[in-house]
Amino acid sequence: MEKLYEGKAKIVYTGPEVGTYRVYYKDDATAFNGQKRAQIGGKGVVNNRVSSTLFRYLEAHGVPTHFLGELSEREMLVRQVEIIPLEVIIRNRAAGSFAKRYGVAEGTPLAKPLVEFSLKNDALGDPLIYDDAVLALGLASANELSRIKELALQVNELLKAFFSQRGLEVIDFKLEFGRLPGGTVVLADEISPDTMRLWEVGTGEKMDKDRFRRDLGGVEEAYQEVLRRVTGGPA
Amino acid sequence: MEKLYEGKAKIVYTGPEVGTYRVYYKDDATAFNGQKRAQIGGKGVVNNRVSSTLFRYLEAHGVPTHFLGELSEREMLVRQVEIIPLEVIIRNRAAGSFAKRYGVAEGTPLAKPLVEFSLKNDALGDPLIYDDAVLALGLASANELSRIKELALQVNELLKAFFSQRGLEVIDFKLEFGRLPGGTVVLADEISPDTMRLWEVGTGEKMDKDRFRRDLGGVEEAYQEVLRRVTGGPA
Ligand SMILES: Nc1ncnc2c1ncn2[C@@H]1O[C@H](COP(=O)(O)OP(=O)(O)O)[C@@H](O)[C@H]1O
Ligand SMILES: Nc1ncnc2c1ncn2[C@@H]1O[C@H](COP(=O)(O)OP(=O)(O)O)[C@@H](O)[C@H]1O
Ligand SMILES: [Mg+2]
Ligand SMILES: [Mg+2]
Repeated sequence: MEKLYEGKAKIVYTGPEVGTYRVYYKDDATAFNGQKRAQIGGKGVVNNRVSSTLFRYLEAHGVPTHFLGELSEREMLVRQVEIIPLEVIIRNRAAGSFAKRYGVAEGTPLAKPLVEFSLKNDALGDPLIYDDAVLALGLASANELSRIKELALQVNELLKAFFSQRGLEVIDFKLEFGRLPGGTVVLADEISPDTMRLWEVGTGEKMDKDRFRRDLGGVEEAYQEVLRRVTGGPA
Repeated sequence: MEKLYEGKAKIVYTGPEVGTYRVYYKDDATAFNGQKRAQIGGKGVVNNRVSSTLFRYLEAHGVPTHFLGELSEREMLVRQVEIIPLEVIIRNRAAGSFAKRYGVAEGTPLAKPLVEFSLKNDALGDPLIYDDAVLALGLASANELSRIKELALQVNELLKAFFSQRGLEVIDFKLEFGRLPGGTVVLADEISPDTMRLWEVGTGEKMDKDRFRRDLGGVEEAYQEVLRRVTGGPA
């Protein structure tokens, strides 16, 4: 099978059938738009298994996704989509770039979940974008934008319920969406500790890639613990 | 009269009556969030007279503003408002920060005018913001936001007509809005070559603060020419 694209965390290959891709999850970790790089042992396995479990759960609750199945520890079979070049960020508490950008204390609760968009473009540093600019730049249609927001908020409610049963609070996460050949918008890419902030209920301990970004130590252990909770069922 | 606030381009004093301010326009110019500083001879006079003329024109066409009158060459009488801490930018063509942020060629026409918001906060570098974050941070209500957008687009249509009769194209501009004591939203601050991009129709020559930002020379001459056209009536 042909290698099509190697990204920062995954490699995309042609799949066994037309219209499918094989996605291989690497241990490579990057932060701050690629300025910080390292390997996190076992991360690829965790992210593939966590993503697969979450995509299965979301599909079971009516969210259309690209997920077709797990092929191996590190490989996922997905439907080929045309990725909409937006990083869709859902926020339940102020954290990370949002907290810094607007001078809000990390952890400040948001009255309602926020859906935020960035242009997915590493060369431009994934700049923040707003609805009218998405439309003006032809990145998505108005219908697609409203569908993306609807799905993003639905995914948020489902993930909050899933993780709260496992002692973790969903602070924020990044989604990507794509178009199937007919134009239907589906959830794509991954949902993993690389793309979410998960805080331990009670202690507030960070159980996600912020351990790597902020040199908090215990990075591999946190990824393994998230995998254990995600696959182990409610605590 | 008491000096209340000295900003980058103006000084605000208490006015002759309760609920009024006297605004004095300086020759000081800053760019890139205060990193570049200079004086532009006569700028204060130009900006006061241009702003006054434009506020009078907008009021005559039904736009509520803070403008009460010109007090002198450099001084304007305005109604005191509670400034809504948003820089409201209306864009007809991609230019400046928008062009750079999204990698779009300067001058690219936008199919529809865009209304863009930044948080007015020098310490944070006036970061881009989006509707849901404006609401989450309590900067404006949903009603205020939609009123601001409506007024911003109305001002854009009026300014485009005004300047096109004077051989200038309105590329983009920044507005600030404020609340009167009863809560009514009105246009405030200034509208001048400091806060707009104006390109000569035909040649595309820049007739605004970009001559200062980009060291194009002929800064004072451009400001004077804008004043001449604005006050001189249709060419
Ligand atoms: N179903 C899919 N079809 C096509 N492309 C996809 C699909 N799911 C994810 N992708 C894309 O594959 C790439 C995954 O690799 P990743 O290492 O995350 O790349 P990047 O460094 O660009 O984020 C991303 O560019 C993502 O947008
Ligand atoms: N009608 C008004 N009432 C109260 N404040 C106003 C009014 N019009 C403008 N302002 C504020 O007065 C200040 C004008 O001075 P300026 O030099 O532009 O300041 P800044 O450097 O903060 O932009 C701005 O902060 C602006 O928001
Ligand atoms: Mg990625
Ligand atoms: Mg100002």
